[in-house]
Amino acid sequence: GDDHNAEWVSPCRCKGCTKWIHQSCLQRWLDEKQKGNSGGAVNCPQCGTEYHITFPKMGPLVYFLQQVDRALSRVSPFAAVGVVVGTVYWSAVTYGAVTVMQVVGHKKGLYVMERADPLFLLMGLPTIPVVLVLGKMIRWEDYLVRLWQRYSYRGQLSPGNSRYLPRVPVDGPGSGDHLSVSRTLCGALIFPSIASLVGRLLFGRMPSNLQRTVLGGIAFVLIKGVLKVYFKQQQYIIQANRQILNYPERNGEGRPEGEEEDTEDSGNE
Amino acid sequence: GDDHNAEWVSPCRCKGCTKWIHQSCLQRWLDEKQKGNSGGAVNCPQCGTEYHITFPKMGPLVYFLQQVDRALSRVSPFAAVGVVVGTVYWSAVTYGAVTVMQVVGHKKGLYVMERADPLFLLMGLPTIPVVLVLGKMIRWEDYLVRLWQRYSYRGQLSPGNSRYLPRVPVDGPGSGDHLSVSRTLCGALIFPSIASLVGRLLFGRMPSNLQRTVLGGIAFVLIKGVLKVYFKQQQYIIQANRQILNYPERNGEGRPEGEEEDTEDSGNE
Repeated sequence: GDDHNAEWVSPCRCKGCTKWIHQSCLQRWLDEKQKGNSGGAVNCPQCGTEYHITFPKMGPLVYFLQQVDRALSRVSPFAAVGVVVGTVYWSAVTYGAVTVMQVVGHKKGLYVMERADPLFLLMGLPTIPVVLVLGKMIRWEDYLVRLWQRYSYRGQLSPGNSRYLPRVPVDGPGSGDHLSVSRTLCGALIFPSIASLVGRLLFGRMPSNLQRTVLGGIAFVLIKGVLKVYFKQQQYIIQANRQILNYPERNGEGRPEGEEEDTEDSGNE
Repeated sequence: GDDHNAEWVSPCRCKGCTKWIHQSCLQRWLDEKQKGNSGGAVNCPQCGTEYHITFPKMGPLVYFLQQVDRALSRVSPFAAVGVVVGTVYWSAVTYGAVTVMQVVGHKKGLYVMERADPLFLLMGLPTIPVVLVLGKMIRWEDYLVRLWQRYSYRGQLSPGNSRYLPRVPVDGPGSGDHLSVSRTLCGALIFPSIASLVGRLLFGRMPSNLQRTVLGGIAFVLIKGVLKVYFKQQQYIIQANRQILNYPERNGEGRPEGEEEDTEDSGNE
């Protein structure tokens, strides 16, 4: 009939008084169930039968537009990833070009890059920040510290003083910057500027910009490495020699061994 | 005494047999509790007293290095955010420059940008992609569709045929691309290329590159808008006229009203 909303429908296997239901009531219930996802399947809550829903046939233009819409929705996440990758790539190219100019000098850098193969530049320039970050990830200072500690232990493990072996501190996430992505990234990207600065300060008399910057970079890495190894070693010693104090007592009570009391008076009682 | 590890310590308010504990046992237990976070406070599990831990005094150089290390750790997240912002900004500048060359022509674009104030370029060029994305976020087609639907309802709400009011489909997240960030971004960024292409196809005889691209962009927006309004309206009609079918029956049973059966035979029994 014409008046679809007043129709009765028997959409599932249910029998008895719940068999027949108003089309309009069921439609409203379906809307609530689907919550806007008009393509989702809905089952009868009592007998579990999936409802059969028909739609009017769409014309060829609507069908075509729907296919275009779906294709765009499917492609757009990949395109967005491409935009992000392109953004990062282009910034890496720019960073590489700036670094080349910083290291070999502004004029000479422009001259070299203008004469180079564009494909080589588009491949080579972005590798500069990548190599810097990868190089920053090599933690040779940590390796040196570990070597030092192993060496110093071998000396203490001689039979005579094995009783006096100090505590070995636990190496945990708080004791270093093992996983600091931001610190690695920033340190790697600022390294050419620091190398250029140190080179100008220490080797200012050298005529070649390239040599000055390379020497400045090496000097910075060595100075920083020595300081880092020293710092880590000192941190290790400080951790190894920590002491837990006695709880400050009012009344002198008995102790298992006659030891001097080394508690502080500023306890939090 | 010298042999700290063999010392007994009474670190908390506990009395009796748990009062005295080996320094070395407590150190090992603390290491496990702190899990590498050597600065964290640890309390006695029985009486709740916080243990007092002392470290050997660090020299001025170690203190200075620790302060530098902490300052770098504190600054690096902000620096990393700066790197990301700089990356996006620089790509926006580049995108803006490419778009200017695309719209007004390669040679003329370069000429215009070389003569412009650099500060103006660094401020103006990144606003081009921002404006494109913001413009893409204005969903005027949706507004037109809603206007159309309201208008067509007003016609149907006349007293004569109010009984035949069709179902109003629910507007949910699945019915449109309201929140597709990737689609908005990609559509906005590719728009100048499409405008240039459409301009060359439809207005190829025009001498000015700028006029051609602007007209192409307007034509594309209008064509796309008409198609989108048509598509949304058709989708709305299709949704409004959905029908829930009867469950296919084997034995003809009694019904409340004498209606024709319009079930399909391909049911999933």
